[in-house]
Amino acid sequence: MSADNDNADAQAKLIDLAAEFYDQFAGGQIPEMSIPTRTKSNIEYDEDSNVWVYGDRKSTRSANSVRGARKLLKAVYTIDFLTNQLEEDRSSTLRELYYLSESWDADEAQFSTQDESNQLIEDLEIVSEVTREDFHMRPEESGAKVMGPLLLREQTNRGDREIHCQDDVGQGGYQIPNNPDTIEFLDNDADFVLCVETGGMRDRLVENGFDEEYNTIIVHLGGQPARATRRLTKRLHEELDLPVTVFTDGDPWSYRIYGSVAYGSIKSAHLSDYLATPEAKFIGIQPKDIVEYDLPTDPLSDSDKNALESELEDPRYQTDYWEEQIELQLDIEKKSEQQALASHGLDFVTDTYLPERLSDMGII
Amino acid sequence: MSADNDNADAQAKLIDLAAEFYDQFAGGQIPEMSIPTRTKSNIEYDEDSNVWVYGDRKSTRSANSVRGARKLLKAVYTIDFLTNQLEEDRSSTLRELYYLSESWDADEAQFSTQDESNQLIEDLEIVSEVTREDFHMRPEESGAKVMGPLLLREQTNRGDREIHCQDDVGQGGYQIPNNPDTIEFLDNDADFVLCVETGGMRDRLVENGFDEEYNTIIVHLGGQPARATRRLTKRLHEELDLPVTVFTDGDPWSYRIYGSVAYGSIKSAHLSDYLATPEAKFIGIQPKDIVEYDLPTDPLSDSDKNALESELEDPRYQTDYWEEQIELQLDIEKKSEQQALASHGLDFVTDTYLPERLSDMGII
Repeated sequence: MSADNDNADAQAKLIDLAAEFYDQFAGGQIPEMSIPTRTKSNIEYDEDSNVWVYGDRKSTRSANSVRGARKLLKAVYTIDFLTNQLEEDRSSTLRELYYLSESWDADEAQFSTQDESNQLIEDLEIVSEVTREDFHMRPEESGAKVMGPLLLREQTNRGDREIHCQDDVGQGGYQIPNNPDTIEFLDNDADFVLCVETGGMRDRLVENGFDEEYNTIIVHLGGQPARATRRLTKRLHEELDLPVTVFTDGDPWSYRIYGSVAYGSIKSAHLSDYLATPEAKFIGIQPKDIVEYDLPTDPLSDSDKNALESELEDPRYQTDYWEEQIELQLDIEKKSEQQALASHGLDFVTDTYLPERLSDMGII
Repeated sequence: MSADNDNADAQAKLIDLAAEFYDQFAGGQIPEMSIPTRTKSNIEYDEDSNVWVYGDRKSTRSANSVRGARKLLKAVYTIDFLTNQLEEDRSSTLRELYYLSESWDADEAQFSTQDESNQLIEDLEIVSEVTREDFHMRPEESGAKVMGPLLLREQTNRGDREIHCQDDVGQGGYQIPNNPDTIEFLDNDADFVLCVETGGMRDRLVENGFDEEYNTIIVHLGGQPARATRRLTKRLHEELDLPVTVFTDGDPWSYRIYGSVAYGSIKSAHLSDYLATPEAKFIGIQPKDIVEYDLPTDPLSDSDKNALESELEDPRYQTDYWEEQIELQLDIEKKSEQQALASHGLDFVTDTYLPERLSDMGII
């Protein structure tokens, strides 16, 4: 679909929302907008799409109070801004939207905090079923970078660019744009995708030529991955039919990084279809690797333990695999970083650890 | 100079260090290593190079105690590791070094914390006058990204790559490699360099085509800039004779970002010649812009005020310009973000603010 059509589609959905308020007014009703409740207790597993989505609990923003009426006024101004932005094929950030509201003619429509404008965009995303990227709201956080046997075409605002993610990039790789749906995959010679948490490990794999030897697309996550990174990973899986593995440190915070790739986050469960890769597999560091590979460790802190306990109660981690690993970790009271594999030498990760794990997982 | 020669040179300097311990032993002396004290009170302005460097105060690591002897043992093992790494033309991260020490045969040579190995590498950098990059110790943090009229050749470990930083890259730009000295500048059509703190503002400038309209090389800093980013900026200034401007938020933490580009940091004053661009100019947000452009603000917090007070006492900020700006800010008790310029519309920054400031500064 061309950018023009995408824009028109997003515009139409936004205008539908505004039209709904109008119809409510016209029909003598108090305008309102109903939105799923975004809490851990209101997410449920969708058997069809294999992702976690919101349940049936809703909250309502209604104009029956001054506060509620103001919220809807802000929504209408924002819809107006977004439809103009799409008309002009431009984009902006959440933070710019917040500041820009100062230039709006109705003082009551101005946002008083950035949380308020962020939340409104999230509401609009959920209700209109248009993603923020399709509103042309750019994230503040950049996507990370890619190295591997993949030829793509990116549609930039200065023309199309064809880029091979090994031959046409420096050691730093290909920088994922804010909206990876501007990318078209042209050709690839890849067997699987390896998402990597830390820059140091990403650089190790690239230096050791792991992407070349194993036909791997290495995606750097850079900690908690940006939406752009998660979206690109999902597209690599779906469109190119590539298995996805996630390689992180062995601690509860890193399991959440895996979770955000595989399951999506609670705050963005409405986007799970767009962002989550439920088939993504965790390749480590697993608590049992700490034992089996005798890795250097640090003791679990109290907050580590609490995070692990909370994961045990999270429906997304209630599988035999995760329960076993998390209980083992609470038992040994240790955590380990992915770079701790260097205690067996700098090549251990590419010569031994990853090949063993990939072979166990049936990927190579 | 070829990579081989660079490696041989760094190797020779490391071996000289080890040889010095050997000579001290042979001469019946207790081996020791003397290092400049790295504190705010021991940095001074070097008139020749226009950067801040360490003064004359030194501290000594001597083998006259078990603790000191262990430190020197660790230094010798690390020198051995680094010379081998250079021999094989490989690289590693600080974190890998820490873990790798677990595989060393002498238990006493193993690092007990990562701070210890980080500190030792810093010591070796200072004493040998070889930068960490030339030891092939990669930073964990990636450099940021570049967009602008610049053609470069990067020497990667899989061959050379010629990349134009507008025509051959996506919207995300060219990713700076960990060691930007692998880059050779081939051609450029640039009038100046604009370093930008936030991703949102960087994306705004790129979307608005500011790099094309003003022949600007836009360097994304991404908060406190990585060494690779500062090094590349310095080289753009020195080798291409381009003025450098630094565009950040208007708060004390952002002035430190400017400072790290222009003056270098206290911890790495031994690298000022390598990393700092003393001619870099601050392009805002200035406290006086908050007043003149009537920008949306937040009140200064107590920690903001303390940071400003501490900057007033920092020799690097003791210029008429900074004293005036910081005192004005303490007076108005407000700070402002660079994206706050959006309160005058999304194009205000590229149509009005930056052109006015650049013209005041005599750059355009």
